[in-house]
Order: sequence, then structure tokens, then C-alpha cells
Amino acid sequence: MSSKNAEHELPGGFSFAAASCGIRGKGPSDRLDLGILVADKPAAAAAVFTTNQVKAAPVLVSREHIAASKGRARGVVVNSGNANCATGKRGLADARNTTAALARELGCRAQEILVCSTGVIGVPLPAGKIIGALPDVVAQRAPSAASFDAFARSIMTTDTRPKQAWAEWRVGRKTVHLAGCTKGSGMIHPNMATMLTFLVTDAAASPAVLRRALRRAADRTFNAVTVDGDTSTNDTVFLLASGASGAAPIRPGSAGEKSFAKALEELCRDLAVQLAADGEGAGHLVEIEVRGAPSDRAAHRVAETIATSSLVKTAITGADPNWGRVLAAAGRAGVAFNPSRTKVWLAGQLVLRNGEPLPFDETDLHRRMLEPRVSVAIDLGAGMGRWRMWTCDLTAEYIRINASYRT
Amino acid sequence: MSSKNAEHELPGGFSFAAASCGIRGKGPSDRLDLGILVADKPAAAAAVFTTNQVKAAPVLVSREHIAASKGRARGVVVNSGNANCATGKRGLADARNTTAALARELGCRAQEILVCSTGVIGVPLPAGKIIGALPDVVAQRAPSAASFDAFARSIMTTDTRPKQAWAEWRVGRKTVHLAGCTKGSGMIHPNMATMLTFLVTDAAASPAVLRRALRRAADRTFNAVTVDGDTSTNDTVFLLASGASGAAPIRPGSAGEKSFAKALEELCRDLAVQLAADGEGAGHLVEIEVRGAPSDRAAHRVAETIATSSLVKTAITGADPNWGRVLAAAGRAGVAFNPSRTKVWLAGQLVLRNGEPLPFDETDLHRRMLEPRVSVAIDLGAGMGRWRMWTCDLTAEYIRINASYRT
Repeated sequence: MSSKNAEHELPGGFSFAAASCGIRGKGPSDRLDLGILVADKPAAAAAVFTTNQVKAAPVLVSREHIAASKGRARGVVVNSGNANCATGKRGLADARNTTAALARELGCRAQEILVCSTGVIGVPLPAGKIIGALPDVVAQRAPSAASFDAFARSIMTTDTRPKQAWAEWRVGRKTVHLAGCTKGSGMIHPNMATMLTFLVTDAAASPAVLRRALRRAADRTFNAVTVDGDTSTNDTVFLLASGASGAAPIRPGSAGEKSFAKALEELCRDLAVQLAADGEGAGHLVEIEVRGAPSDRAAHRVAETIATSSLVKTAITGADPNWGRVLAAAGRAGVAFNPSRTKVWLAGQLVLRNGEPLPFDETDLHRRMLEPRVSVAIDLGAGMGRWRMWTCDLTAEYIRINASYRT
Repeated sequence: MSSKNAEHELPGGFSFAAASCGIRGKGPSDRLDLGILVADKPAAAAAVFTTNQVKAAPVLVSREHIAASKGRARGVVVNSGNANCATGKRGLADARNTTAALARELGCRAQEILVCSTGVIGVPLPAGKIIGALPDVVAQRAPSAASFDAFARSIMTTDTRPKQAWAEWRVGRKTVHLAGCTKGSGMIHPNMATMLTFLVTDAAASPAVLRRALRRAADRTFNAVTVDGDTSTNDTVFLLASGASGAAPIRPGSAGEKSFAKALEELCRDLAVQLAADGEGAGHLVEIEVRGAPSDRAAHRVAETIATSSLVKTAITGADPNWGRVLAAAGRAGVAFNPSRTKVWLAGQLVLRNGEPLPFDETDLHRRMLEPRVSVAIDLGAGMGRWRMWTCDLTAEYIRINASYRT
């Protein structure tokens, strides 16, 4: 798996296209804001949606469509620049009209079309711009790495780079491919960001097999850069399988299902770590590891509390070995432990053992914390539970981006 | 009640002093970092401490002392510049030795002395500097507004100003006084900040009466600028009553107890709002009101989620009427509600009614959001529960302060 696509073969059976249809401003703009993903034939599909009480119109419509089609999809239409959320009845009509327009172009039913939006909340979606642009976009679609890359760029908001990953493995004498792309750069408070992920494979699998594998992979990867499983109003992950590899269908409970699940989880983790590393204004990717918790669930809670602590994040921004903030964050996570059994590591350096601070070379540790990837680890000495999470630091650039989002 | 002390009379029976003993740096510094509060005679005392699993040494020692003395205290010694937390056995000895030194000066038992520290975690406290300075500090103490002001300044860390409040009321023919000061400017993530509050009154009351009134007031005020009741490793509120007003003792269940509780709660709210307004790097004080929740507890949860959302905070930093972020934060608080019954107000402007966005004058609302105090309100349309919280916005100055805390 890798983050470069030059040498990667896309899964068969899918094509992609992107365009600039003018959602992002009043004047013309060359910034891509519309993308489509098209399956040559109806593909098996699975989805994971936001658990937010406030669900954007495209989430409501996609959820309805994937249920009505019994997990079959021909295409996905996605726009950036507007989340089509808190837009009332008009927003729902806009999302429906957009899927109907792509269905017309592809000659399929609207319920075989899925839809995503990302961007500002509470502003009506200029659906006419999307619908007007669709015929050309559909005509331009191609099963190429270049068009996949354009699609990955069209979903970006404050992301600084497109985020993609590839995998392939053998099933009998056939090679099966998996590719994905993701966006969601407000990952500093990931529960507020819109995270969109699109996964395509030419494996043959039923919607039920896809659903199980996707849910498991998302829990261990995308939800490990997310607070409490809480997600934004628009968060969506789609997985489509074309079967175009010609490999035998994946049977539930088979070794083939295990291989598929493993490849999917690894690829999702790759994308999730890319998300954290490209968090808004991020200067450092931060990997948080909690060990010795009473349970995995408790470890998850402690990891989340550390990962969302502004004081831990800003210490890493300043490459300041201020490990007391890590300990203090762990202590307020609502998990019982005895500080006198606790160990803390910063960038691999043990700084607290059994409640006693250890001497360390401050200049050296500061230097190690200047690296783009910084690890934070804590052993609570209270059991066997463990959890890993990824986040990024909190910088003045984050403030700049978010204090002037709409202006 | 007011934030100016020129015209206020201090509660009788207490004196104060502050000094610069050199905790804040290697060289001499004129910044106050040591304060004492002395009761002429043993005062009735009550305390509220942090619920963090990791408790600083002064918290452990103060908790022990107030229990051993059965709620009687002669003095408090407090330092800024070092939290004496995660400092192991040495830290506990340092806290004990400090209380013993003040007890020697006052001729009382060590268990009648309470102690607080605030500042960096994990660095040994230079207790010798405090102990060496105490004789002079004790000799300088005075029952004056100026010495109370110096005490309020000595506890400041990144606070930009001392925070004080006064109250007085009549009990029969006597006037009873109450005064307080607080610090804790990392209130943007208040659960990580050290919040210290000192309250003194010349009312006559038993420790039990003080405890009940203090717990109730703290829940509705200091905990309303705090996430989930989680607090830092050092958070402490002390309330001491001298009885020096000569007023009749407050009897449990009496009208006098109600007057006292009311005055205490109002004064604590005044201090708590001052804390939020002086949050690290704060440009705006933000008042969050949640109505129409299934219960007060649910309203509290929604208010906390909004109050700690980096995206809500940064929208206010930029005076950006991006109300979708308020709705999205409410939606991920884990409280069930129907967005189509929800109303949102920003700076008094209704922007969402029953799930439909309303038109508003963007320039005008932007201008109103430039005011130093900005209100955010949401009605979930799901019940009678309500809660109010205070926070501040999130600015580049917060990052600057916290990314270079120790350097």
C-alpha cells in the first residue's frame, strides 16, 4: 500500500471525473468542487454514516437510497464548498434532484445513486450548478489514475493535499484491487469535521459481506481519529465492489473474507493516518498509545481525552516536553488508575515512572519533538486494555483557517 | 457586587500578604508568586477539590488537613509558577513542610494550614524559597484592600488581571461581608486549567453550613465554566468564615442560611464569569444557553459540547455568524432531539427556526459579534431542561501562550 498512485492499478469496473461548477464562489473558479464515481454495472455497496442527531440532506437521501436498492449502486455524486446541511426541505429536494440528474445521465434509477456534500452548513446548495454540469462531467469520466486523482481533489475543502491509498492481493489466479480516497482536514476536532471516504474494489462480494468488513475497519481506523464515535453532520464512508476482477465471490466466514477484511482495514488505517496528518493547520502528526487500562474501552476513553486536549496539542505545537499535560488529561478521562503506577513516554522518552518524574535531556527531547511525527504513550498500570489514536497538533494556522471560514 | 475594591470593606478577621520569592525564574523577579491568607483566630472552613485522578501534592495535603482539623483553618499558603504535581514523594514532603513553616510563624498546628500551588506540572517545587520568605511575608500581612489585591495578584499565572468580587448583606443589625478572588486563565479548556478560588466571610457559620453552601454554589458557577465537572490536578476552592461580623451564627435550614447561600452563589458566579472572560488569549466572553432539553442534565451536556467546540469558538473569534457549527455541536452531544423543532440564536439574532435557516443581515450580525460579550442560544424543542455556561473564544494568542509555556 502506498500514497502514490503512479504505479497503481485502479480496481476494474469504475470510472471517475471531476469538474469546477462554481459552488465555491460567485465568479468562475478553477477549483474542483464536483466529483462523480461511476460503476460500469450496478455494484454491491455498503456505507457508514454520521451518528450526529443533525444529519445533512445528502446523508438522509443516501441512507434511503442504499436501503431501497438493497445495497446496489451505480454512481456517487459529491460536491465540496457546501454541506447542504440545516437547509430544511429545500436541502432535501436539492439532494434528491442531484441524484435524479445523475441517474438520468447513467440510465438507472435514482435510488442507485448516492450523494455526499461537504462545506459550509446552513447555506442553500446551488444544486442547479451541479445538475447543469453533470452531462459534461459524465461524458468525461475515465477509468484512469488521473481521473481518480481529480476526483480525490474535488472533495477537498481545507485539506492541503489529496489523500489516497491502494492495495492489491491474489484470490486464486486473479489479482483483486482496492483503492480509496478521503477528505476531512478539520480533524483537529474530528467530530466536527466532515470526513468523506470513497472505497472501490473489483472483488466480488455481497452487500452483507461489504457491510461487515466496512463497519469493522471503520471502527478501528476512522473512528480512531474521531471523538467518541461522534461524527459531523455529513460524515460518510462508501465501499463499492464491482466484481470486475473475475475472482470468485467472497463467501461469508471464508479465508477470502479474512484477507479482504485485513486489506480493507490496512487501507482504511493508511487513509485515517493521512487525515490526521493533514488536520487543519497541523504541524505534527500525533500518535497516542494507551496501555495498561482496565479495558480496551477505558483505554479508548483515555486516548480520546489526551487526543482532544488543547494543552497536550499545543505542547506538541511548541515541541515542549511538558508531559504533565498528558498525565493531567489522562487523569480527567473518568477512568480509575493509581498515578503511582503510571508511566509516561514522550517521543519514545520515558519521563514518568511509577509517579516519579525522571530526569531527561530537555534539548534532545525538544529536538525529537520537532519531528513531523510525535508519539505520546501512557501505561496506567491498571490492566491489559490498550488503544491507539491519531491526531495532530493545534496551531495558530488552525485558528486562522477557522476564524475566517466564510469570509 | 462589583469588580472594583476601592469602596469595599473586607470581611473582618482576615489579613493578607504577598511576595516575590523567586519561584518563577532563576534570577530575581518582581512578579508576585507567594501569597498568604491568615485568620486572626481559627476560622470555620470548607473546601472543594479537583476530581482528577491525578491530584497535586497540595490538594492531598489540604484535604488531609481540613479533615484532621474538623473544618478549622488559621491560614492558607499559595504559590504560583509551580503546581507541585506529579512530583512524587518529594512533592508531598514539600507541601507538608510549607504548611509546617506557616504554622510555626502563626503558632498553630500544621493541620490548621491549607496549601495551594499553580503552574507547571512535574517540576520539583522550590519549597526552600517559600519557607525562607514566610517570616517576612507573615510580618507584612494586613487586613487591607491593598493586601487583598496583592494576594489576588500573587496567584495569577497567565491571567491578565486579578479577579475579585465583594458582597455584603445585613443580618439583624450587623453587616456581614463576603469577598473572594480567583485565578485560572487556561479556562478555554477549563478542565485542564488550575482554578484556585479563595472566599472569606465574617459571617459566623459551622463548617457543615459552609460545606453545603459552597458545594451548591460551585456546582452552579465554577462548574458551569468546567467540562463535566472534570477539573485539573490542582483545582481548589476554599471558603473561610471568621464570625468577626458579630452577627448571629447561621443556623441550618434558617432564612439566614438562604441569604448566605444566595450571596455566595452570586459572588461565585461573578468570579466564574470573570474567569471565562480572562481565558487564555480570550477576545470574547461567550455565554451559552441551552433550553428545551429533555432534562437539565441533558441541557448541561449540550451546553458543554458547544462550549468546548473549537469550531464554535473560532467562529466567535472571527465574529463569523457560522451558526451551523452550533447546531452541529449540539447534534453530537449524545442528547436526542429533532432538528426540525430546533431554534438557534447568535448574539440575540434568531438564525434557525424549526430546522429552517432564516435570512438575516450578515453585516449587522457580524458587527454584533464583535462585541466583547457574545451569546449563543439553542432551543432543542425537546423538553423543559435548561443550562447556562460561560466560555471564551479560541485565538492565536491561546496557541502562542500554550505552545511556549515553559520556554
